[in-house]
Amino acid sequence: MRPSQRAVDQLRDIQIERNFTCHAEGSVLISIGRTRVLCTATIEESVPRFLRGKGQGWITAEYGMLPRSTHTRMGREAARGKQQGRTVEIQRLIGRSLRAMIDLKKLGERQITIDCDVLQADGGTRCAAITGAAIAVVDALNRLQRDKRLKEDPVIGMMSAISVGVYKGTPVLDLDYDEDSSADTDMNVIALEGKGLVEIQGTAEGEVFDRSQLNLLLDLAETGTQALFDAQRAALAQG
Amino acid sequence: MRPSQRAVDQLRDIQIERNFTCHAEGSVLISIGRTRVLCTATIEESVPRFLRGKGQGWITAEYGMLPRSTHTRMGREAARGKQQGRTVEIQRLIGRSLRAMIDLKKLGERQITIDCDVLQADGGTRCAAITGAAIAVVDALNRLQRDKRLKEDPVIGMMSAISVGVYKGTPVLDLDYDEDSSADTDMNVIALEGKGLVEIQGTAEGEVFDRSQLNLLLDLAETGTQALFDAQRAALAQG
Amino acid sequence: MRPSQRAVDQLRDIQIERNFTCHAEGSVLISIGRTRVLCTATIEESVPRFLRGKGQGWITAEYGMLPRSTHTRMGREAARGKQQGRTVEIQRLIGRSLRAMIDLKKLGERQITIDCDVLQADGGTRCAAITGAAIAVVDALNRLQRDKRLKEDPVIGMMSAISVGVYKGTPVLDLDYDEDSSADTDMNVIALEGKGLVEIQGTAEGEVFDRSQLNLLLDLAETGTQALFDAQRAALAQG
Amino acid sequence: MRPSQRAVDQLRDIQIERNFTCHAEGSVLISIGRTRVLCTATIEESVPRFLRGKGQGWITAEYGMLPRSTHTRMGREAARGKQQGRTVEIQRLIGRSLRAMIDLKKLGERQITIDCDVLQADGGTRCAAITGAAIAVVDALNRLQRDKRLKEDPVIGMMSAISVGVYKGTPVLDLDYDEDSSADTDMNVIALEGKGLVEIQGTAEGEVFDRSQLNLLLDLAETGTQALFDAQRAALAQG
Amino acid sequence: MRPSQRAVDQLRDIQIERNFTCHAEGSVLISIGRTRVLCTATIEESVPRFLRGKGQGWITAEYGMLPRSTHTRMGREAARGKQQGRTVEIQRLIGRSLRAMIDLKKLGERQITIDCDVLQADGGTRCAAITGAAIAVVDALNRLQRDKRLKEDPVIGMMSAISVGVYKGTPVLDLDYDEDSSADTDMNVIALEGKGLVEIQGTAEGEVFDRSQLNLLLDLAETGTQALFDAQRAALAQG
Amino acid sequence: MRPSQRAVDQLRDIQIERNFTCHAEGSVLISIGRTRVLCTATIEESVPRFLRGKGQGWITAEYGMLPRSTHTRMGREAARGKQQGRTVEIQRLIGRSLRAMIDLKKLGERQITIDCDVLQADGGTRCAAITGAAIAVVDALNRLQRDKRLKEDPVIGMMSAISVGVYKGTPVLDLDYDEDSSADTDMNVIALEGKGLVEIQGTAEGEVFDRSQLNLLLDLAETGTQALFDAQRAALAQG
Repeated sequence: MRPSQRAVDQLRDIQIERNFTCHAEGSVLISIGRTRVLCTATIEESVPRFLRGKGQGWITAEYGMLPRSTHTRMGREAARGKQQGRTVEIQRLIGRSLRAMIDLKKLGERQITIDCDVLQADGGTRCAAITGAAIAVVDALNRLQRDKRLKEDPVIGMMSAISVGVYKGTPVLDLDYDEDSSADTDMNVIALEGKGLVEIQGTAEGEVFDRSQLNLLLDLAETGTQALFDAQRAALAQG
Repeated sequence: MRPSQRAVDQLRDIQIERNFTCHAEGSVLISIGRTRVLCTATIEESVPRFLRGKGQGWITAEYGMLPRSTHTRMGREAARGKQQGRTVEIQRLIGRSLRAMIDLKKLGERQITIDCDVLQADGGTRCAAITGAAIAVVDALNRLQRDKRLKEDPVIGMMSAISVGVYKGTPVLDLDYDEDSSADTDMNVIALEGKGLVEIQGTAEGEVFDRSQLNLLLDLAETGTQALFDAQRAALAQG
Repeated sequence: MRPSQRAVDQLRDIQIERNFTCHAEGSVLISIGRTRVLCTATIEESVPRFLRGKGQGWITAEYGMLPRSTHTRMGREAARGKQQGRTVEIQRLIGRSLRAMIDLKKLGERQITIDCDVLQADGGTRCAAITGAAIAVVDALNRLQRDKRLKEDPVIGMMSAISVGVYKGTPVLDLDYDEDSSADTDMNVIALEGKGLVEIQGTAEGEVFDRSQLNLLLDLAETGTQALFDAQRAALAQG
Repeated sequence: MRPSQRAVDQLRDIQIERNFTCHAEGSVLISIGRTRVLCTATIEESVPRFLRGKGQGWITAEYGMLPRSTHTRMGREAARGKQQGRTVEIQRLIGRSLRAMIDLKKLGERQITIDCDVLQADGGTRCAAITGAAIAVVDALNRLQRDKRLKEDPVIGMMSAISVGVYKGTPVLDLDYDEDSSADTDMNVIALEGKGLVEIQGTAEGEVFDRSQLNLLLDLAETGTQALFDAQRAALAQG
Repeated sequence: MRPSQRAVDQLRDIQIERNFTCHAEGSVLISIGRTRVLCTATIEESVPRFLRGKGQGWITAEYGMLPRSTHTRMGREAARGKQQGRTVEIQRLIGRSLRAMIDLKKLGERQITIDCDVLQADGGTRCAAITGAAIAVVDALNRLQRDKRLKEDPVIGMMSAISVGVYKGTPVLDLDYDEDSSADTDMNVIALEGKGLVEIQGTAEGEVFDRSQLNLLLDLAETGTQALFDAQRAALAQG
Repeated sequence: MRPSQRAVDQLRDIQIERNFTCHAEGSVLISIGRTRVLCTATIEESVPRFLRGKGQGWITAEYGMLPRSTHTRMGREAARGKQQGRTVEIQRLIGRSLRAMIDLKKLGERQITIDCDVLQADGGTRCAAITGAAIAVVDALNRLQRDKRLKEDPVIGMMSAISVGVYKGTPVLDLDYDEDSSADTDMNVIALEGKGLVEIQGTAEGEVFDRSQLNLLLDLAETGTQALFDAQRAALAQG
């Protein structure tokens, strides 16, 4: 039995609020259960030095947690003068993944900077961040197209991410903090709609896992990413 | 005429949402017009080294802006490894002010850490932060009293803060970004309800100011801080 | 009774030594009682990036305390790899104030960098720094004019700064360290000669203050800044 | 056809030199083709603060590349004052993996610090680092047992790591730099001998991947980790 | 002919002002020609961690240049967040040298922290710093003895330092900036009065040097350090 | 009697392995007894900003110790975000010395970056680094000449470095760690073959030294640097 009473293949409630803030080209507040992440997309008309003159764009991402998004207060990274290893790892993952949903040639010499800031954390923040940021990217690119600054839509497909894991011996979908902190295996799966997998990261926190468990986890993840694609589409259909 | 069509002594709309996030002992999202700041208060049962064994508590504050809370994206301070001078100046002001609303002896050997994170900026973020944080402090202290961990209420009085300035030659209340960026004089006034002034900081950005202008600005500020005290009381009366 | 036996409106002894060091375009050692600050002005024939091509100049300031300028040794900021919040706050104040004494258009595309280094501290270092730096700026600009590199004098007026405060219930002028560390209210006032006020920063350290106290403090400050203008003029009249 | 003419399931030459340096408790120079990593294990008789008094040990890892281990010189991280994101990500992976090969309770309140320094890089440095470090850990623990400081052997099983990927449409084992820089999918697989998988990290760099490709890659990885277990055993059997 | 018209073995004018600032236990402003360095000695009743409980004291030093002590302004190290390599090298030299003039056992478990801050630079700042700091140390220790906190005088002997070099083919004593910037060989010699040499650092900046030149330079340095010992003694004899 | 049983003028065994790694233009692993340093030389076709357009080249050096190159593990400088003072001092010495063996005009507008990384430390690492790096520089320049990118050989002469010191009252050559840690005087001597001395740095760690001891130490150093020149020549004669 899961602490939240959910079925093994049941996602938490999903809420997606577009245009949560007014300045960014894309701004999405995504809630997956109690996990809430503000994802903004900023368009800049230039690319990093290593890409100049190559006729393609770039997507980069930064991630942060507000100090009291967690049960006990975490030190503010800006005050400590350093991002933690976990932060660096997550923001690299977000940027790498989102680059796979865009045809960077069609984007042109522009950069999209994603900011994912966790307002409230209850497990699965990196997956929520990717799922929310994908919508913010689409909103930002739609604005570029409305403004006639982009000829072709560079979106290859929608992207979503979900965690799966082995909790008390049972594979389950969408771990919350209580489950995550005692799971044996924890895996994040990122999918591109209608195409396939973009990234899988599975870690044995306690017991090792075998190929058959891996397959069960990937089945669950497929259920989860499909449900997220539906939620993303529903959100984008509004206004 | 003000860009927002407001009267010279008219505040922007105020919205105060308590318990905006679930982990902090106090958590307030305050909106003053389009300026939105999330203020949390965290209670820790220890004090900084310089106060150990002195039988009193402490309040400290940290301030940050989400990178895309502003018109154009600001670099993330955590990524640059350094807080900007403006950030440092503001968080020192917030901490210093809030310490004046609390009897630190009655607080006992505890520290309250305030985090003020700007989700959306449109002028007056430091004043909104102080006004919102004052409520978060009260909520956190009420929780301590309900839990019988505090015998006496350490709150001396409610605190609010407002900006005033000389815009195109006219003293006005509660400057938004458009006004702030072209004002001649900009002043922040922090008041303790029923007591008096805690801090005034007035700066001539363009033309210098004289004593009579200063008096007009302080009159406006009194109007503003009174309205904010009313809004704070109304918010605290709920739930 | 003040610890120094001074009258409530009595400044400490003022000494101003121009050309204290030989390399800087302006170099002033100012002593206000035991507080001694070395202020230098450096002219550079370029402006920060954000001002390039705008046909105006800039003034910026840096502030530091020698580690043993104080009663007990402070850690060296260069060794700790970080300027303290107080340092950042003060150097922003110095730069902002001095920009108000200069017509930046007339300065042309040049930057003046002010360095204020406290050799010995006994309260009021930021006010001494501004008062001394104003002279160093004038010396540096006079040199530019003698060298025919400036056509018009960009100085709008002389600038001085003084602290006032409420010490044991009585408003007093020019607080030394003993007074400052136990004052209820502490205010710094910066004035432009013959024009008006450039900045006021008043903080209730203990008891709050009201409008009538504020007016008494501003009266004292006017006495103080006038006396400093006289001392500046006398110093500039020499050689 | 692979640039190195290897068969799709063919590892590069493996050389393992134990006791490469004399001070560390375990010191292994591992060469996988031209990739050479020096892995040392240091035993300290204390644990990090968060584990004190919990009766268990800890393993942590640090990773670095010598500036000219690569084709063109990389800036020295110590000189830049910051480890790169990639470095942080890799050292977290190494530490997390190696903790899975040890019963931390049996280790007792000790910490093993792994240092993996890349002397020469040609792809697969993180996998070589884990495979080499596993031997250094065993050497260090054997020394502890010889010295009668450990009663029970805390090693759960041998650990090895290998990269697999889709190169020009074909799944291949053990990518070198030429293959890695143009592979569509790149996956690192870490296995615990006789138990199962400890970590998999697969990333679509170009085309996405599907479940059947994933299975082919995992088959290859099994071949690779088995061959590495053999090489580790052979190395440990010497002297 | 030297630019300053001095004889090859002629020092610049030496001025030593004790008690230049009022808070430090020892405070000396030393001027060697136009080079002026403020040297303070601070006594702390504790030692660094690595010496605790060993019954001996320690001397450490920090060095800095005010930004406009030089011809063109140098960036402030505190603002850049990092001490330059040259600074680090010099402060290590100062600390190491001064430890040789004190019997650290007799000092007891105390630390003397030396701060050498260059107010004006014209070559030879590190030698001036050591020569001035030696006096500040003696003043600080005399105060400890007057206060009965030290039983025995821990001073082994007076210490002075001087630069020598080969300028346009001729060995000369006490290089100023003009000579230093074009000298072939530059050597700093530090001597303990009546004992011998504590440190020599000779560098060929242009042409290499041979043993006979080295001997001529050491002869000059002996003249210089003797004259400095006389100046130190004269300064200490006053008040 | 020396701990290693060596004669007072006896060097440790010298081994020089060229082309130790494959990417660098010059790559030398030098072993002086148990001290082992990997020295690489990287050629870049540009010079630092301060030399642009001056028609000359530059040599700079960086130095590091692997964390477990020493008896007990040292913290990794990259992880601490700062190079230690000793590191900075050594890398400045290496760069300054090597610049004296090259005619920088003949090098043209190129920079050679030397990396000296200590794999195993047993005293004398900075001297081993210089001696090894000199060979790496020659290898890198020979490659430039073979590639017809350099017309004239810019090497002025071979360079070697050795430590000498007073150990238990006796001057000895080439101190190992056991001797170094208890020597009274420690001196590093750097020589240019057939020319003379480039740098001497002598420090009294315990007892001061006099001119006659200095001369004995310099005699020993001459023996040592000659033997190192022979070893360098022999290494360069191979392949």
